[in-house]
Amino acid sequence: MIDYSRYDRVRAVAFTGSTLELLDQRRLPFAQDTVVARDVDAVAQAIRDLVVRGAPAIGIAAAWGVVLAGDALGDVDADAARTALEPAMARLNAARPTAVNLAWALRRMRRALDIAGGDWRARLHAEARAIEREDLAANRHMGHLGAALIEPGSDVLTHCNTGSLATAGFGTALGVIRAGVAERRIDNVYACETRPWLQGARLTVWELQQDGIPATLIADSAASYLLHGGRVKWIVVGADRITANGDVANKIGTYQLAIAAKYHGVKFMVVAPSSTVDMDTASGAQIEIELREANELLGYAGQRTVAEGIAAWNPVFDVTPAELVDAIVTERGVIHRPDAARMAEWMRAHVG
Amino acid sequence: MIDYSRYDRVRAVAFTGSTLELLDQRRLPFAQDTVVARDVDAVAQAIRDLVVRGAPAIGIAAAWGVVLAGDALGDVDADAARTALEPAMARLNAARPTAVNLAWALRRMRRALDIAGGDWRARLHAEARAIEREDLAANRHMGHLGAALIEPGSDVLTHCNTGSLATAGFGTALGVIRAGVAERRIDNVYACETRPWLQGARLTVWELQQDGIPATLIADSAASYLLHGGRVKWIVVGADRITANGDVANKIGTYQLAIAAKYHGVKFMVVAPSSTVDMDTASGAQIEIELREANELLGYAGQRTVAEGIAAWNPVFDVTPAELVDAIVTERGVIHRPDAARMAEWMRAHVG
Repeated sequence: MIDYSRYDRVRAVAFTGSTLELLDQRRLPFAQDTVVARDVDAVAQAIRDLVVRGAPAIGIAAAWGVVLAGDALGDVDADAARTALEPAMARLNAARPTAVNLAWALRRMRRALDIAGGDWRARLHAEARAIEREDLAANRHMGHLGAALIEPGSDVLTHCNTGSLATAGFGTALGVIRAGVAERRIDNVYACETRPWLQGARLTVWELQQDGIPATLIADSAASYLLHGGRVKWIVVGADRITANGDVANKIGTYQLAIAAKYHGVKFMVVAPSSTVDMDTASGAQIEIELREANELLGYAGQRTVAEGIAAWNPVFDVTPAELVDAIVTERGVIHRPDAARMAEWMRAHVG
Repeated sequence: MIDYSRYDRVRAVAFTGSTLELLDQRRLPFAQDTVVARDVDAVAQAIRDLVVRGAPAIGIAAAWGVVLAGDALGDVDADAARTALEPAMARLNAARPTAVNLAWALRRMRRALDIAGGDWRARLHAEARAIEREDLAANRHMGHLGAALIEPGSDVLTHCNTGSLATAGFGTALGVIRAGVAERRIDNVYACETRPWLQGARLTVWELQQDGIPATLIADSAASYLLHGGRVKWIVVGADRITANGDVANKIGTYQLAIAAKYHGVKFMVVAPSSTVDMDTASGAQIEIELREANELLGYAGQRTVAEGIAAWNPVFDVTPAELVDAIVTERGVIHRPDAARMAEWMRAHVG
């Protein structure tokens, strides 16, 4: 059995009863500062500014943002609350466009309001707490399912940060890696630094270090040369959105890793809770890919590295076509070699 | 005709008669400082420390290093000079292991000494000057040959820096891009930032900006998503060594780009003078790949970004197999779809 308590050292999102405490991921690993959000607009701002990031963590933060918005309303009934909260939910939803968990969490909060009566505040609170708890449970279960696919003696490579910092705890892809290390299936973990925001360099290797799991950092561009060495058997990544045909939107660079994996005969695993699956979007071509400021590429942490007047193109997600994915691991089972038919079958069998 | 004078603004290596002036590429683009090397050890140090980088520029700097070492000798004859200079040449040769131009330039200097008489100092000086001039002429010719392969209306992507800063002037891959822009074949130029040393971000886009050629910077990991867009028709890169079977050692990340190019049906061009071809090495598997300090990956532009105690793997070159290369452009002609037979045929026909 995995001792999960050792993975409880890092918590990205914590509701205190009256405020939302967010570990400021812009300052990690050198400062563990907390941003305290006292109202829904502060939560939306924190999502936009990457104080909190990672698709599941964004969804959880948004759910608590709705709670804060509800608590700020005067003495109104559920119907009035529903109407009054709609603009707040729209602002939260607009904070980041690519991850679907944000919209999914807001839908759950809206539905909770719909069926609530006079106890609507308590129902909102309970729903946010449920989203958070279910995410943690899903991650632990996915860790187990995903690790089972990895042959003992494997090295693995991951991209971006998909750990406790990106979720309610344990992590998606990083949860599989934690479980795989605990079960002695994984020998060595490699992490891409993940430009431009360096989630891998700043967050992932630090999170693993907290657990006593040594990881080796590589430049994003060194991944193919690493795979050529033959020791890496799986690339394990998270997802911001999975479409009805099994296409996967995830951090920029994921697509490139999947192409390299195919070329080298390395397996490619996507780990994400079922809330990440968006059956209303037919394929990756329909996903809006967030373009962020050129600025993020022109330097780092306020230090400019590029001459003035240079243009940059800074998409922060890309789409990996289903044909490059060997397994999508969800808390409701594994979809092997995903395509539209297998995704639909999985929905019927496990989600309904 | 291309107006080459507009490409004369940047000069990486300049021999003054008694010292070697090197534009300090660690400080670009914000400071244009010159490191003055007064003896051969200062030249070797500058090569090791990346004051000067780029395979052809390293070769040129090493040739001038031999001149400085020769000038420092007392009144000796050619035979004694040959013996006395051998340790200096060994130190230069050991400064960086992967690029073959360094060893090639030293071989030329050694041969010049072999056939020299009492005028050996003048012969060394003339040989270094010839290496420099031939490199510039080769680049201009390769620019023309390579640009001819690019259909008008194309976008191109390049990696690392292969321009005037990496050569005696004009550049190898960047020479093709300059010629392609001048001939109105290339619409848009994209450059990878090229972690960890950021040659693309710091040097390439700056060099192109000096020429009035706008370039757009991308994260190394965004290349595949860019290719997916369909506008990029060629990836154009340089080389540090090309082996007898057409394998190409070049900046880390080149291999990944070549794999992505193949997946998208984008063409892949390697531009390098014939001095980069190493027919004594059978394939890329025999090339020593330089591993540099983990430190280069643990920060960004001198600013630490990664927690203490984290390991990193930092190979700074990789090998692209010939099967992924559409054309090798040299000053002695183009080798299409290189393999061992075509490389041997090209050697017979053009190099001898």
